[in-house]
Amino acid sequence: MRYELYYWPDIQGRGEFVRLALEQAGADYVDVARRSGRGMGVPALMRLLEGEAAHAPFAPPFLKAGDLVIAQTANILLFLGPRLHLVPEDEASRLWAHQLQLTIADLVAEVHDTHHPVSGSLYYREQKPEALRRATAFTGERLPKFLGYFEAVLARNPAGATHAVGDALSYVDLSLFQVVAGLRYAFPNAMHQIEPACPRLVALHAHVERLPRIAVYLASERRLPFNQNGIFRHYAELDAESP
Amino acid sequence: MRYELYYWPDIQGRGEFVRLALEQAGADYVDVARRSGRGMGVPALMRLLEGEAAHAPFAPPFLKAGDLVIAQTANILLFLGPRLHLVPEDEASRLWAHQLQLTIADLVAEVHDTHHPVSGSLYYREQKPEALRRATAFTGERLPKFLGYFEAVLARNPAGATHAVGDALSYVDLSLFQVVAGLRYAFPNAMHQIEPACPRLVALHAHVERLPRIAVYLASERRLPFNQNGIFRHYAELDAESP
Repeated sequence: MRYELYYWPDIQGRGEFVRLALEQAGADYVDVARRSGRGMGVPALMRLLEGEAAHAPFAPPFLKAGDLVIAQTANILLFLGPRLHLVPEDEASRLWAHQLQLTIADLVAEVHDTHHPVSGSLYYREQKPEALRRATAFTGERLPKFLGYFEAVLARNPAGATHAVGDALSYVDLSLFQVVAGLRYAFPNAMHQIEPACPRLVALHAHVERLPRIAVYLASERRLPFNQNGIFRHYAELDAESP
Repeated sequence: MRYELYYWPDIQGRGEFVRLALEQAGADYVDVARRSGRGMGVPALMRLLEGEAAHAPFAPPFLKAGDLVIAQTANILLFLGPRLHLVPEDEASRLWAHQLQLTIADLVAEVHDTHHPVSGSLYYREQKPEALRRATAFTGERLPKFLGYFEAVLARNPAGATHAVGDALSYVDLSLFQVVAGLRYAFPNAMHQIEPACPRLVALHAHVERLPRIAVYLASERRLPFNQNGIFRHYAELDAESP
């Protein structure tokens, strides 16, 4: 099965959670909007997004797998998890993995809203006072709460704190890696303060970063750098104060 | 199977999407935090939320089904859908239903942030200027986009526009009913403007409202009224201007 991933070509964004799973599994996939040529590029993405298909998605990312078009990041991973052997087989574990992924999605949405608290249609510079208030609440309250939760999830895993779900790598581990990486880019001071309380999460990030296929991917041109157009953005004034 | 639903006792909130599915299916369930007595009430909810269980959730609502504790509204409906016969049997339809439910969840989060654009820890009165800007962007852009999308989903359903997924009632229909009901409470002027462009969605709301079990539920004390503590709140200044 050759998977087709559709996502904006210039940012990691939500597409990155899917890319990491495809890369770790060594899956055959095409990152459609980043390719040029017939049936490729952003026009191919827009055709599916704005088309009249019964199951047209609301927003990228979406995945084409044969006749299926699947949107919503966590839903794509729900679909891919078993096929890429990135989630345990029993229903309880799959629901748990998906629940964690949805909690990650909530965190990612809150990260986005630190720089766009009013509207995604306006530039950051048009909503800076609102962003400052929201980001202060985020780094002061929400971020420690989310990361503290994921740290507790690792600490309580009956199979050990190496993984979030069971005793093997899952797409949740890959997504938690991405969250830590993105937060370090966006909020280095806040993370400097919070990370000492989250040693298992920090260790999980380091573990995933060193997985052979992930290491190759991260060093490749397929891995876009973080930038000021993505979800994780660094605006110094939105970060916690330096220690 | 007796299900235990855990959600804040004084608001419809996200728990309502689960309640509607349980009610329509005639399921045996206990709304734990709304009951009193041994093992009931908010303390029972807090025990699970703040406990040390391996799968403790991040936030309500959550559902206890035997040994399983499942959180995240859309994940609960993913689990309940097949068991309550509120989703088709094939994988493609289930992924599609879940995808729509996750898009509904995104809309609900944006509704919440119209009155809490800075922080859920602050009162509305402490973030009124930010709320006004966010709500204006919401009613002017995001709400028409979301409702236009769901209208298109109904219009494009190969089985007809009566239902969102396939040719029978699903939990997605119940959730779309709740979205329309909540939006009418919160943003009557905006809905007055938008509804003429969404006749299928309006008809779906009316269809669900008249389902015998839903009608009984809505008339019962189990259905909490909308209020100013829930997700859908009516602040006249956040609504579109009256026509």
